[in-house]
Amino acid sequence: MDNTQAIFEKLKIELLKHHSKKFKEDFLDLHNYDQGRFFGELTREERLLVYKYLDPDELADTFDELDDEPDLIAEYLDEMAPSYAAALLNGMYDDNEADILGAVRNDKLHKLLSYMQPVDAARVRQLLKYEEKTAGALMTTEFISVAVDTTVGSAMNQVKQEAQYAETISYIYVVNESNQLIGVISVKDLIVNPDDVFIKRIMNTNVVSVRDDEDQTEIAAQIRDYNFIAIPVVDERNKMLGIITVDDIIDVIDEESAQDYSRLAGVNSEDMSENPWKAVRSRIPWLVTMLFLGLISAMVISQFQNVLDKFGVLAVFITLITGTAGNAGTQSLAVAIRRLANDEEGDSVFKLILNEVITGILIGLLTGIAIFAVILFWQKNMVLGIIVGAAMSGAIFVANLVGTLIPIIMEKLGMDPVVASGPFISTLSDITSILIYFNIATICLANFY
Amino acid sequence: MDNTQAIFEKLKIELLKHHSKKFKEDFLDLHNYDQGRFFGELTREERLLVYKYLDPDELADTFDELDDEPDLIAEYLDEMAPSYAAALLNGMYDDNEADILGAVRNDKLHKLLSYMQPVDAARVRQLLKYEEKTAGALMTTEFISVAVDTTVGSAMNQVKQEAQYAETISYIYVVNESNQLIGVISVKDLIVNPDDVFIKRIMNTNVVSVRDDEDQTEIAAQIRDYNFIAIPVVDERNKMLGIITVDDIIDVIDEESAQDYSRLAGVNSEDMSENPWKAVRSRIPWLVTMLFLGLISAMVISQFQNVLDKFGVLAVFITLITGTAGNAGTQSLAVAIRRLANDEEGDSVFKLILNEVITGILIGLLTGIAIFAVILFWQKNMVLGIIVGAAMSGAIFVANLVGTLIPIIMEKLGMDPVVASGPFISTLSDITSILIYFNIATICLANFY
Repeated sequence: MDNTQAIFEKLKIELLKHHSKKFKEDFLDLHNYDQGRFFGELTREERLLVYKYLDPDELADTFDELDDEPDLIAEYLDEMAPSYAAALLNGMYDDNEADILGAVRNDKLHKLLSYMQPVDAARVRQLLKYEEKTAGALMTTEFISVAVDTTVGSAMNQVKQEAQYAETISYIYVVNESNQLIGVISVKDLIVNPDDVFIKRIMNTNVVSVRDDEDQTEIAAQIRDYNFIAIPVVDERNKMLGIITVDDIIDVIDEESAQDYSRLAGVNSEDMSENPWKAVRSRIPWLVTMLFLGLISAMVISQFQNVLDKFGVLAVFITLITGTAGNAGTQSLAVAIRRLANDEEGDSVFKLILNEVITGILIGLLTGIAIFAVILFWQKNMVLGIIVGAAMSGAIFVANLVGTLIPIIMEKLGMDPVVASGPFISTLSDITSILIYFNIATICLANFY
Repeated sequence: MDNTQAIFEKLKIELLKHHSKKFKEDFLDLHNYDQGRFFGELTREERLLVYKYLDPDELADTFDELDDEPDLIAEYLDEMAPSYAAALLNGMYDDNEADILGAVRNDKLHKLLSYMQPVDAARVRQLLKYEEKTAGALMTTEFISVAVDTTVGSAMNQVKQEAQYAETISYIYVVNESNQLIGVISVKDLIVNPDDVFIKRIMNTNVVSVRDDEDQTEIAAQIRDYNFIAIPVVDERNKMLGIITVDDIIDVIDEESAQDYSRLAGVNSEDMSENPWKAVRSRIPWLVTMLFLGLISAMVISQFQNVLDKFGVLAVFITLITGTAGNAGTQSLAVAIRRLANDEEGDSVFKLILNEVITGILIGLLTGIAIFAVILFWQKNMVLGIIVGAAMSGAIFVANLVGTLIPIIMEKLGMDPVVASGPFISTLSDITSILIYFNIATICLANFY
């Protein structure tokens, strides 16, 4: 890491001293990802020097690594001569190119497209039409396909010629005369087989592909399950359109897991704007929904106002009981979601519920006894200890059950169990906890006082 | 999907009717992942037939896809003749082989190793020594390396011979006479360069590698950032030991994101045992910690017992205020964590805090006004409405601030902000919410009654 920073410093000095040749040499020696990091540290003036010293094709490889920041790149493009910008875009993989052009202002977009080869411009326009987060929006059209009636030798020659433009050569796709995907071979197959073997004989016809309108989450699951380096994208007629590579899918998986966490809190992760008004607009709906769900609990408590008036100390423990039960329910939820993610079904779901029931009883008892002891020691009140201890046990048992059942039901209804379960479980567990607490209190107080 | 099930049914029939040749042909036509799914559906008797009809090498490819269930495979091995089991393990990639042998009982392990070639057994024993979740435990030794003084042509010949044993041929690693890693070339480089070019001239010497004791999370970050298909693993002397491939890293990323979620709820994700006692032992510590933190809130409430006795309806809204403030704090937390994950620093952290302050004031005001209106309508009590509304505004403002500051502080202290922040924020926000609520109530009641 320190080493990289030292190289970056050296590069900056070369840049500012206008040692253009040395700079170019050392810069191109870096891995593309490090080139991207270096470029990100530069000032506007330093960047203008880079555009002077590097060919657009060379910088294109750097920019391919900045593919998660299309808005930033769109700003960089503004600093360049349009012809340089167009050439640079042209040198990038076209999935990244389309992402960036999607972030460029409309007037600028037309200008850039006018500087491109008509055929490239048309291809990019086509990619820009796909909806975000679909296979079409993720794919690149830079793949290698061969005709079904070629031999290994001539396929290899084709790979030699097209390799530098292809995003991966791990798979070579086999198409018929209508450009329909009918098979796949790996570069390994090409290397180990003799030149005169026909592709048809060695290709795998059981090829897994995705449709251009398929959602990225589904595609991520397939790449993960099948351990692919890339997956082909086809249209409704099975015509080969492009490929999605595993590096883009890793970004999708990362993004989705961050999104799940944000959505749990009702925050729209794509709208991480720095504008407080927008933040308010994005957060208020979930917050107010939860507020109104919380009002149900408040209404239930107000039904027990007469018990509270007689025995005011009960109020002290409401939050403790609802909070602890909520925590227990969240634990059950976490376990249930993981089990469901592992695709367990049938018997196993029943076993999961049974286990949670037993776990809930055990945890409820232990926690109830603990809080009983604490209250006996703190408040010196046996009846209060019994009420809170018993209520805690019951509330935890119910919360565990709710935390297990709700995600199972959500999944059966086809909803995402991670995101939808949280609010329901906290609200339901709050209400049942309060009901259990005040009913136990009413019974005990009637018997003891 | 339906199509696959139909094929599975057909395969089962072939199996039970002892059409061994047809079964073998159709089974091997499936993608390895689907072979694994099919195999997972079989009964013990059906599996015994599979061991009869398939060579161990053929089934090895299937078992390589079941790499996330080493315990299950260890059970399958028990069903096979030891010589078949040893041959099957030998046919698997050795990272998976080591995982499975790690799950096998000790007596069985020695028996299996005794059936292997001594050199293979020694290699697996070596892999078994690595600690879980390190590069050494994840890596496979089935990579291709070439000497630095070879030509493209002879390297290509070596690839042809070794390809079927290598887990990937995307990269060919270049080593010196002491087996130290000094460069890397891609299979693309081999294909496009003429046969007589020396590897030394075209290799990339700026090769990114990881040490065998490095943690899997770090490795995942590098593979993601550099968009690698595989990363080489070296020892402390830079000797080449193995490679880690991107498919294993996707599993790591998946696992880590599931873990984060579970750890948020204090559930140990690795101990997803079906034994309720173990579940209790794993969940109770966090739950009891949270219970005692919750007791602090209860003690704070009990300090205001006199206010509660005079104005019992206040008890109705404690949970609502702490709950809503907690939700608002969680939203800020989610935003802060995402921003921190994007590595923002300096100015930007200050801006994040400022934005959250403004957002907190706005959301607090809006929510306060909403709850004021609800209480006015429901309880017909202007003073209660003012108390709850004002307390809600203040509590949300503080919770937002806490939800932003705690993860920033956690990160500065080198702790994982996702996992450690949750409990602190809910406890802190509960206490401040209660203090704000009852202090406002005390002031208002002193003035109005």
